[in-house]
Order: sequence, then structure tokens, then C-alpha cells
Amino acid sequence: MKRICLKIQYDGTNYSGWQKQPNKKTIQGEIEDAIERAIGEKVEVSGSGRTDAGVHALDQTAHFDTTKPVPTEKIAQILNRHLPDDIVIKKAFEVDKDFHSRFSIKKKCYCYKILNSANKDAFLASRVGLVGKKLDLKKMKQAAKLIVGKHDFRGFCSANTTSLTFEREIYFIKVYRKKNFVYVEVCGNGFLYNMVRIITGTLVDYALDKITLDDIKAALENGDRSKSGQTMPPQGLYLKETIY
Amino acid sequence: MKRICLKIQYDGTNYSGWQKQPNKKTIQGEIEDAIERAIGEKVEVSGSGRTDAGVHALDQTAHFDTTKPVPTEKIAQILNRHLPDDIVIKKAFEVDKDFHSRFSIKKKCYCYKILNSANKDAFLASRVGLVGKKLDLKKMKQAAKLIVGKHDFRGFCSANTTSLTFEREIYFIKVYRKKNFVYVEVCGNGFLYNMVRIITGTLVDYALDKITLDDIKAALENGDRSKSGQTMPPQGLYLKETIY
Repeated sequence: MKRICLKIQYDGTNYSGWQKQPNKKTIQGEIEDAIERAIGEKVEVSGSGRTDAGVHALDQTAHFDTTKPVPTEKIAQILNRHLPDDIVIKKAFEVDKDFHSRFSIKKKCYCYKILNSANKDAFLASRVGLVGKKLDLKKMKQAAKLIVGKHDFRGFCSANTTSLTFEREIYFIKVYRKKNFVYVEVCGNGFLYNMVRIITGTLVDYALDKITLDDIKAALENGDRSKSGQTMPPQGLYLKETIY
Repeated sequence: MKRICLKIQYDGTNYSGWQKQPNKKTIQGEIEDAIERAIGEKVEVSGSGRTDAGVHALDQTAHFDTTKPVPTEKIAQILNRHLPDDIVIKKAFEVDKDFHSRFSIKKKCYCYKILNSANKDAFLASRVGLVGKKLDLKKMKQAAKLIVGKHDFRGFCSANTTSLTFEREIYFIKVYRKKNFVYVEVCGNGFLYNMVRIITGTLVDYALDKITLDDIKAALENGDRSKSGQTMPPQGLYLKETIY
């Protein structure tokens, strides 16, 4: 038995998220099917965490155990032949038995991509969140400063969250512009349900004068979801890095 | 009654091509539905030509007639609110009654985008044709030289073509590389069914030593489809410019 770690890139547009669900196309389901077809073994693929329907990944990490004598260096290539073109295994390598893609993770970075333009772009429909009014990056950075650090983030997660603890640490938030795009990179030790989309929405809503810095402080201090910003749409969100 | 011309951008991934068909999602169908919802009038939208399922457009041109007193300068904005995000009206303006998007056209330019890489990219699955082996651009340009000009192109169209005449003029073909991408731009007075995809496939197949220059000459002179190259997949093709 050996444990294989996968580094995965996917366009989440056509999937009901990472997690396997009956009668739905999911990333986990497609990868498990591809492994079964490729190496003839039914395995369970564990990811570093779920991503929602429509959310993308540049570097999702997952692992599975196999008893088959597959040459490790060929796994990526073989799986890619069995996977749809919008899911790509970038790397596959053997890891110790005590490695776990979910429990061994040290740091996770997401990037939210905003098309900051009055005009839609047909080719970006499933790749960005659209904000029509010009965003003031100075204000977004000001709001980000409040959010960085160790906090109880229950004011920054969806009511559907299944987590039992709400304390998380955000190591940094970077906000920058390239042409018409504004990027919000959020790096932390873990994230609650919809947390990055709500953090981004909070920065956006403060920049658009829909909420105040005091609202953000209240959301952080009292866990009041009604004080933080909108939940940005899933299609602008990218799981950018999973670090072990 | 006034005649409105539309300049349209679309990601063709989720559509069965331009032309309206019963029970299928098409670009023409979506635009006609959006016009009906937006201005309350059932109209027929005529395009400069069809694009196939999966083919994209940066600049498709179409027109329709309306009896409603809609302010022309607001049409693009209003239609975009009623259209799915992967179809965008870039401009709408009034044209003379004798303007016809199909019959008045002078020049049409397509661009075929090749990802020339051994590795797939999840985010480009529906946006490029993939060629794994390094392409020799000098050879592609050599083949292109033969194809430019006025020819009988029956050796460069699909058997499903419905055209009655096969003579077309190609004004120019540009082949260039940017990073991992090779672009083939083909400009002409008109195109047969699958013609740009077959021209691109011919350049690719010659660069990969699958066919010879003599094969290409034979395809041009005798209309022998078996001598020209492969039909490249639709997702790399972009209708780039429609010139009147």
C-alpha cells in the first residue's frame, strides 16, 4: 500500500463543487472515477477541503491509498487521460502514511478575482466577480487590516457552516489591481464556509460606502453577520495554494 | 421601423452554435429571447454567418428590425441585462434599411488559438485547441502562403457544407507565437463549413510532417479533402472581426 498525493488544477464552472454527491458532477467524484478507470481500483480521494460549486482551484491538494503497483511518476499523465479537460493533475508523488491532505495542512491561500468594470466580458462570466463601480483600493486595504489576525469569524461565515469552532487566523490579505482586475488574496490557517467570499465582499462593500469600519469591527467582535459585507459570487474564487 | 445593428461577443462553450434550433440553447435564440423580454417584440435576428457549437466570437455582427420606440443608445445596456453573462452586446447602433449583416459584409477574420504545450490547462479546456508537439512556425507560414489567394476550397470544407459555390478569397493568413500559444489568423471574403478549422489543421499537420506541400497543392487544385489536414476542434476558434 502506498499513499499518493495529488496537486490538482480545476475550472469549477461545470461542477457541483469538490465533494462527491449522488447524481451530481463533482471534482472528487470525477477524480475517483478516473482512478478507478486508470488503475482498476476503487479508492477514496481526500481533499485539503471542499470548494463550492463554481469555485476554481489552481492548487488543490488531495491524497489516496493504492495497493496497485502503479509507477508513481506516471500517475499524473495517466489520470489526465481519463479526466475531463477542465480537471488537470499537475503532479502526483508518494507521501508518508501519516500525511493527510486535510489534517496536515499548514496554510491555505485563496485569491478572489474581481472584474472592476462597467462592462461585462463574455469570456470571464464564469471566472470573476463583477463590480461595476471603481473600487478604492486604499479603503479595501484599510478594511483588510482589521480582518488580518486571530479572530472569531462567526460574523464572516454562512449560516450553513458546519464548523464547531470559529476561531481562525488570517496571516495576510493582499489587495492589488492589474488593469481592470482587482485581486484579493487571503491567506490563513483555515476557513469557515463562504469566509473568503464574505471577507472580499466586506472589503468591496466598505470601498463602496455600503458599510463602515465600525460595522466590520462589530462583525469581528460580536460575530454579527449582518454587519459584514455581501457574499461575493463563487465564480471569482480560486483556491490558490495549499501549503504543508 | 428602424434597423438596429449589434456587435456581439460570446463564449460559445455552452451553446449549440449561433443558429436557432428547436430545444437547443443557441446564441441567436438567446438574443431573440432577450430582445422579446427587453422590448416586448418578437424579432428575427440575422447574423453575419453561423458559428458552430463551441466556437467563440469577439465581434459577431447581427441586425434586427423593430417598430418599438426604444432609444438606440440604451439597447446594448438593456439587452445585456436580459442576456446570460457569456453573451455580451458590445455596441448597438441604427443602420440603413439596406444594410444586411450577411449580405453587406466585406471581410471576415477568424483567429484560431492553439495551446502548443505538452500539458493541459484546466482553464483553457474550452478556449483552445491543444497541440502537444512543438510547432515549427516557419513551416506553418510556408503552407499558409499556398492557401492565401483565390481558390476553389472544396478540399478545405466539411462534407456537410451546404454551399453551392466553392470559390473564396483568402486575403491573408498570419501565424505567430505568444508564450505557449500559437495563433493562426485567417482573413477572407467568406468561408465554407469548417474551412478555418481545416486550414489551421493543414498548417499544423504540415508542421508535424503528417502531410506535404504537394498534398496541400493537390487539395487546392483537385479539391481532394483527403489531402488537406485535420479539422481542428471548435473550441480554439474565434470569429475575430466582421468588416462592412
